[in-house]
Amino acid sequence: MQARASVADFAVHGGRLALARAAFPGRDDWIDLSTGISPWAYPAAIDPLALARLPEPAALAALESAAATVFGSDAADTVAVPGSDIALRLLGQVIAAKAPAVVGPGYSGHVAMWPGARVIAAIDADAHDALVLARPNNPDGAIASRDALAVAAQAMEAKAGWLIIDEAFADAGGAPSLATTGWPATIVLRSFGKFFGLAGLRLGFVVAPPAVAAPLRRLLGDWPLSGPAIAIGTAAYRDHGWQAAQRVRLSHAAAGLAAAIAAAGLAQCGGTSCFALVDTDDSAALFRHLAGQAILTRPFADQPRRLRIGLPADADQLARLAHALRSRSLS
Amino acid sequence: MQARASVADFAVHGGRLALARAAFPGRDDWIDLSTGISPWAYPAAIDPLALARLPEPAALAALESAAATVFGSDAADTVAVPGSDIALRLLGQVIAAKAPAVVGPGYSGHVAMWPGARVIAAIDADAHDALVLARPNNPDGAIASRDALAVAAQAMEAKAGWLIIDEAFADAGGAPSLATTGWPATIVLRSFGKFFGLAGLRLGFVVAPPAVAAPLRRLLGDWPLSGPAIAIGTAAYRDHGWQAAQRVRLSHAAAGLAAAIAAAGLAQCGGTSCFALVDTDDSAALFRHLAGQAILTRPFADQPRRLRIGLPADADQLARLAHALRSRSLS
Repeated sequence: MQARASVADFAVHGGRLALARAAFPGRDDWIDLSTGISPWAYPAAIDPLALARLPEPAALAALESAAATVFGSDAADTVAVPGSDIALRLLGQVIAAKAPAVVGPGYSGHVAMWPGARVIAAIDADAHDALVLARPNNPDGAIASRDALAVAAQAMEAKAGWLIIDEAFADAGGAPSLATTGWPATIVLRSFGKFFGLAGLRLGFVVAPPAVAAPLRRLLGDWPLSGPAIAIGTAAYRDHGWQAAQRVRLSHAAAGLAAAIAAAGLAQCGGTSCFALVDTDDSAALFRHLAGQAILTRPFADQPRRLRIGLPADADQLARLAHALRSRSLS
Repeated sequence: MQARASVADFAVHGGRLALARAAFPGRDDWIDLSTGISPWAYPAAIDPLALARLPEPAALAALESAAATVFGSDAADTVAVPGSDIALRLLGQVIAAKAPAVVGPGYSGHVAMWPGARVIAAIDADAHDALVLARPNNPDGAIASRDALAVAAQAMEAKAGWLIIDEAFADAGGAPSLATTGWPATIVLRSFGKFFGLAGLRLGFVVAPPAVAAPLRRLLGDWPLSGPAIAIGTAAYRDHGWQAAQRVRLSHAAAGLAAAIAAAGLAQCGGTSCFALVDTDDSAALFRHLAGQAILTRPFADQPRRLRIGLPADADQLARLAHALRSRSLS
């Protein structure tokens, strides 16, 4: 590895392929398995008018309606946002939490919501007035107990606090969404780009009651989304057949990934249909070994035993990954 | 006009073509002259990878650098945002103004920055600690005195306030940008979509010192822009030849528009190279007359004598507009 990048640089976010090419020069055929984004994208055609014109309110409403149908939420409570990452920061502005906490280890964007947010290991509604967690969790895929969350939501309502559940990886299946519950004091975030394989589009949703949805809409302004995000998002959420097929594709690919990990004698300690989490004595060494074979994966600064591996896009990528995993003891 | 829409509905924002079709049914050949967006778009090709992948930090930095070169600003002070409308709302969060004021009549997004913002008729640095104005102004095209603004910037610095100048229509020419000045306590906003004819892309910039740029970047998060916005924006800002040609196109079209207004015996009381402002006894009547001929223009709720008309895209559109303006007394 070159001096200008260390494993820690890849533990900030996935997808830093330009950095990887510079740090591990010599090969052009990189496979990026550092994110949980589906390698199969919804087939997106962009109408030039969607780029040229200002998006109209009716088009935005149609998108929110199509998405709410998929989420099982009320369209009036379903606010389209230009990515769930920015939505988290804006929620941090809208919700005046005195003692916010994030259940971790999890996504770095959660900690960025409030400057003083604590990271806690398990749901603790007593000491906090805002609780943030991902369900399924990233990177371990853990699914927080629905019963425990229902109790937490009631506790939050009693103290005018908020339970915030990031369902960024919920579309691929694994646990029913909590956007359908109508629980009090509960906010659910959804992500478009991961499941639909279009992370560059920047599209997400916040499902929240009016006390949060209304100020959030004011903060987003009158043109919160790009024209392509509205057009492609509407088509994709309406295409229930494609979504069902995508879930099958992801599930098959996740099974193939799990088999490759097991065949290499590595331990998988978690995951979703979009990625697997490996537990190993030295994840930095495994990261470097894979990067030396032009395969980018995702280490975590606060979890030195963990390496997240995304879905190979096809049989060739899976074979290259399987070979690279098996050959790790030789490097 | 149908009962479900009134002229006031079109005084919220331009571009409400779906509403216009519903309110004035019968014709399909609408010409939308209700915005100040160039009818000629930068030729944009979208790489599917820009949609599929998460945008990388180096690509965002390259966009900010290309834009800063055009603005004459420092790239480190030039923050890319997903549209200047949302940027205004976020600045309202970042800047804790006690007595903010907006020089008006102007753009509605300025008033939305702070709940208690006052609308004032002229620059008044004494009574306020945040001053917002557009230069050129929208809709009248007025260009605030550079000397008066320099004095205001100094006054703002002395009281830890901010001077915020929205240069959304500056690219077309008319007055040199203030992003080059390095004035203290000064923030300049730029818009991509109007001059480059790609308003659906959602791209803008905030040029601000670190005290504002740093918290703004934190609020925007790690993926503030879509992949297409980064890719197309970078190519467009680097294409100085296209920008020069676009300024000529806009200037010629604005001259043709002015001639059509004058030939119809109407008074033009302002404008820029992107639009003209007409002064007339009853702008609502003129709006309805033009809408009846499938030409959408922009009335203003607080300025009953004013109608803004954008640039016709070609000779046919100009001829239709000219005929419609001349025939107004017959309707």
